[in-house]
Amino acid sequence: MDKLNIGISIGDINGIGLEVILKTFCDERLLNLCTPVLFGSSKVVSYHKNIINGELEFQSIRPGDTPEPGKFNVVNCWMDNVNITLGKATELSGQYAGISLEQAVKSLQNGTVDALVTAPINKEAMKLAQFPFPGHTEYLARELGRGQEHLMLMVNEGLRIGLATNHLPLKEVAHAIDKNLIKRKLEVFHEALRIDFGIERPTIAVLGLNPHASDGGVLGDEEEQFIRPAIVELKKKGVLAMGPFPADGFFGSGQHTKFDGILAMYHDQGLVPFKALSFGNGVNFTAGLTHVRTSPDHGTAYDLAGRNEADPSSFRSALYLALDVARSRKQYIELHANALGQRQKPADVEGEDEVLTED
Amino acid sequence: MDKLNIGISIGDINGIGLEVILKTFCDERLLNLCTPVLFGSSKVVSYHKNIINGELEFQSIRPGDTPEPGKFNVVNCWMDNVNITLGKATELSGQYAGISLEQAVKSLQNGTVDALVTAPINKEAMKLAQFPFPGHTEYLARELGRGQEHLMLMVNEGLRIGLATNHLPLKEVAHAIDKNLIKRKLEVFHEALRIDFGIERPTIAVLGLNPHASDGGVLGDEEEQFIRPAIVELKKKGVLAMGPFPADGFFGSGQHTKFDGILAMYHDQGLVPFKALSFGNGVNFTAGLTHVRTSPDHGTAYDLAGRNEADPSSFRSALYLALDVARSRKQYIELHANALGQRQKPADVEGEDEVLTED
Repeated sequence: MDKLNIGISIGDINGIGLEVILKTFCDERLLNLCTPVLFGSSKVVSYHKNIINGELEFQSIRPGDTPEPGKFNVVNCWMDNVNITLGKATELSGQYAGISLEQAVKSLQNGTVDALVTAPINKEAMKLAQFPFPGHTEYLARELGRGQEHLMLMVNEGLRIGLATNHLPLKEVAHAIDKNLIKRKLEVFHEALRIDFGIERPTIAVLGLNPHASDGGVLGDEEEQFIRPAIVELKKKGVLAMGPFPADGFFGSGQHTKFDGILAMYHDQGLVPFKALSFGNGVNFTAGLTHVRTSPDHGTAYDLAGRNEADPSSFRSALYLALDVARSRKQYIELHANALGQRQKPADVEGEDEVLTED
Repeated sequence: MDKLNIGISIGDINGIGLEVILKTFCDERLLNLCTPVLFGSSKVVSYHKNIINGELEFQSIRPGDTPEPGKFNVVNCWMDNVNITLGKATELSGQYAGISLEQAVKSLQNGTVDALVTAPINKEAMKLAQFPFPGHTEYLARELGRGQEHLMLMVNEGLRIGLATNHLPLKEVAHAIDKNLIKRKLEVFHEALRIDFGIERPTIAVLGLNPHASDGGVLGDEEEQFIRPAIVELKKKGVLAMGPFPADGFFGSGQHTKFDGILAMYHDQGLVPFKALSFGNGVNFTAGLTHVRTSPDHGTAYDLAGRNEADPSSFRSALYLALDVARSRKQYIELHANALGQRQKPADVEGEDEVLTED
């Protein structure tokens, strides 16, 4: 199998981003798995390398250069001497995080890298640098969107929890839920499970919005009005969606281990059990984009910056997931191309047809 | 230490209630710990005893009789032959559940039993029997209330999660939250942790209502408007309340292990992580009542009824908790009485004063 080039945006240079990146690649076995391409500057990398006392050697290249396979490539996106102020949100740290992200996305689009792992940025710093998006996801949805729904997905081994609504005040959640939203999110989820996670006939559990999934209408009506009809319509399209399940009993009885995906209705309903069950090893994956993007599920952790105490496990998991998803997509496209090719032969049409029309 | 009499309401006779009760007391060591007093009828008990093939001997008594210490006492609250229809919600099963509950509460009030463990009832059956309350908690709040707030508390070893709002449709939660509600719930919680759980200076973590506890006001304003001011006011009264914490990060980073109590803002925010972390061993405790009441955190489980497959661990935990809380209350009252007694001696007044005014 060809080694994939994994683009890495540098994140906030005053936070723990580079620390977890460098710690990850100090384990040389990872350089056998993929070719990392970090968008930043060798000076900034050297600064953080001193903090972790790491042995990692890196290869400086210029934007547009072909990354050297099996090396830790650092694309010099700027040559300036940068003022690093560990633990502080600054205009500079926001600016450079933005430059790195833009370059990384360009390289995704022109095919220099096969997938992207983003290191954490800081909201305040991005605001100081006048970055016009609330976060990574919104920026990437514009740059890499396909004019359809995207889905924030939290992943930890077999546990995959998607969010029907994301960063909304709780009082707005119920108003934001309707049948079409659930349908669109389920469609993206289904496609991601098949193509990105290689699960042929994925099952998706849908959680109720209300306590006890409304107890048959006693505690709210969104389950009967929106959620159940959305599930019924998607079932007719061949999506194995089930529910709505009462969220507490669902996790309490271990049912989360029996589904390929779980669609939660709002942020805390999905992220609270996810983080309680994944113990800091979770990965954020944005489903529904043209390219693969993952990120660790922690932030810049300014309070830890420069102390060589940050735990790289979530970043490492994000890297593994990016590799897995990128491979799974490639494989799907190859298989699918073959199937389409075979379709030309009249004898095969009937047998393939049923499978193909399910897409 | 005196053996305590633990009252047990029979719950729904068509469900798994009696199965988990009888399985629990088949372990004779429990009869050394307490004297169980089941409110029901010996005929119904015999019926369920046959299902579990248990060796348990029981002692039939009449309402008003003194329970025999160290025996499994069954108070015959009715003498009729009862039609048991396993797995079905019937008017009869609702009626007898109600009679058992009423008798148990009377015995709590007249001191025959020291604490109450309620077996699960079924909402539909209670409705058929025209029981005019949506559940145990509401009935008990009327019978055993103290004209103040009560608090639904989920308990599993050191994890104690209270709910600021309970069975509300999600869209009503934000409107139900205000400063006074949080204050009242925190006061009941604080008192319960001290008196019922014997923790002298308990710490309570308060979760935010919104994702990321609103990220400083970006995602809702209830944290700044209601939750933080309530915490500040209670701190001035000596309650060690902290927060508001973002719920996902709180459980993800294991902070739930560092507090004596956690106040969640709504049902799923508290019960989802509770059930995910306690694996079916949770207990429901109603704080703020005149008497001690616990219950297992499962329902009648009609689908399991009569199959001898029900797991008694949650009921057993509920029994242990009822014993612990009843003892802790007694101890607190004794200590408190002593402290008040000592106060009469002038020399002790100053030293005691600081502690006493904190109550």
